Amino acid sequence: MAETMFETVKDRELPLAEQAAEQISQLIIERQLRHGEKLPNEFDLAQQLNVGRGTVREAVKLLVARNVLEIRRGRGTFVAQQTGVIHDPLGFAYMPDQLRLAHELLDIRLNMEPWVASLAARHATPEDVAELRTLCAEIEALIQAGENHLHRDEALHVRIARCTQNRVVPKLLPVITYSVQLFGRLNDERIYEETIRTHRQIVDAIDRRDPEGASEAMRIHLAGNQLSITEQEQLRDRQP
Amino acid sequence: MAETMFETVKDRELPLAEQAAEQISQLIIERQLRHGEKLPNEFDLAQQLNVGRGTVREAVKLLVARNVLEIRRGRGTFVAQQTGVIHDPLGFAYMPDQLRLAHELLDIRLNMEPWVASLAARHATPEDVAELRTLCAEIEALIQAGENHLHRDEALHVRIARCTQNRVVPKLLPVITYSVQLFGRLNDERIYEETIRTHRQIVDAIDRRDPEGASEAMRIHLAGNQLSITEQEQLRDRQP
Repeated sequence: MAETMFETVKDRELPLAEQAAEQISQLIIERQLRHGEKLPNEFDLAQQLNVGRGTVREAVKLLVARNVLEIRRGRGTFVAQQTGVIHDPLGFAYMPDQLRLAHELLDIRLNMEPWVASLAARHATPEDVAELRTLCAEIEALIQAGENHLHRDEALHVRIARCTQNRVVPKLLPVITYSVQLFGRLNDERIYEETIRTHRQIVDAIDRRDPEGASEAMRIHLAGNQLSITEQEQLRDRQP
Repeated sequence: MAETMFETVKDRELPLAEQAAEQISQLIIERQLRHGEKLPNEFDLAQQLNVGRGTVREAVKLLVARNVLEIRRGRGTFVAQQTGVIHDPLGFAYMPDQLRLAHELLDIRLNMEPWVASLAARHATPEDVAELRTLCAEIEALIQAGENHLHRDEALHVRIARCTQNRVVPKLLPVITYSVQLFGRLNDERIYEETIRTHRQIVDAIDRRDPEGASEAMRIHLAGNQLSITEQEQLRDRQP
């Protein structure tokens, strides 16, 4: 790593560790380092950034907290998988009125996911469709066994997003399907049957490369969920 | 703070500091602590979480890195503004081919923002419209002075998102308008004039409470940008 990669970081206003973290990020970006690539050791980084080893250690911790780096004990510091993508990045967990949040998220999904499904129908490969069918079958089996299917449900929606060939869509979708977790508490038998049926309709439409059909099936799928949330809201608002 | 708030955190697989960070988050959520509210001091937190003060210090640093907490020197630890919302949460900066990324983000914006504009036209108050007009005027003045208007441009789009009354939309929009920063490098005179004209058309339609007009004006606004990116991509791909 050339020393010219880094400017001296001591002359700006951010805390030193934050500045060093920014320089390390910049290095990863410029070098196009990928998941699993190893960073120089603490000593070398400290020299090149012109800061103490304590500062480097703090900077690395900041980047681990943001899922940019991962520490493998005894082996060193590496670029993390899904670099820079963090869980619940919009702080939904901290928002008051989680039922209203579920409603707001589903409004966004009702706008976005029919479009995602139509793109998926345009671009899906036979391998994509096979994986979607497997996920559908897994969800059905879990529902029939009375087990929690929500994790696989989210995986199906994200897998559909991956069919679009747009790299951002599958990163964005887990953010807005946060509502699946909220919605879990509200589910009932009726919704389960509808979930199985409408999931199949979405995948069938993708399989026959029918963008309008996929979009409409997704819209019906999500609208059913939205209706159920609205009922819950009305129930709550009616209570004294 | 009751000691019963916390389970003992030593019995799971996550690193201790990460477990303690999770417990502190949970506390903020359960107590509905808001921006500016103060946390107990390190000593009290350590006692209640049943961990060392070093672990508490690490946990607080993790939460600062995730914009959940902020440290005010000499005053203590407080809940951060925009709790848990972080910059570039999907790691766009780490993705290869930033021109393709700009294209992918604009595809998503072309799906989402016409819908956002139509919702804004349905729900905007006179105060909302006044602020949108101010932002439009600021952007025009910056463009005419030859200065960088992109920060205000993003602010206008986020302000339109706030008119929707959906609390998630204005949190989500800054994530996908990341492309504004990328796009800045590609701008030319022609696009600047179009930006001024189409921004005005969007705000005029919101002002006359015309959802279809607002949606269509936004679509035209973003489609102009998309066209310009496509031209840049073709130019690049033609080079040897």
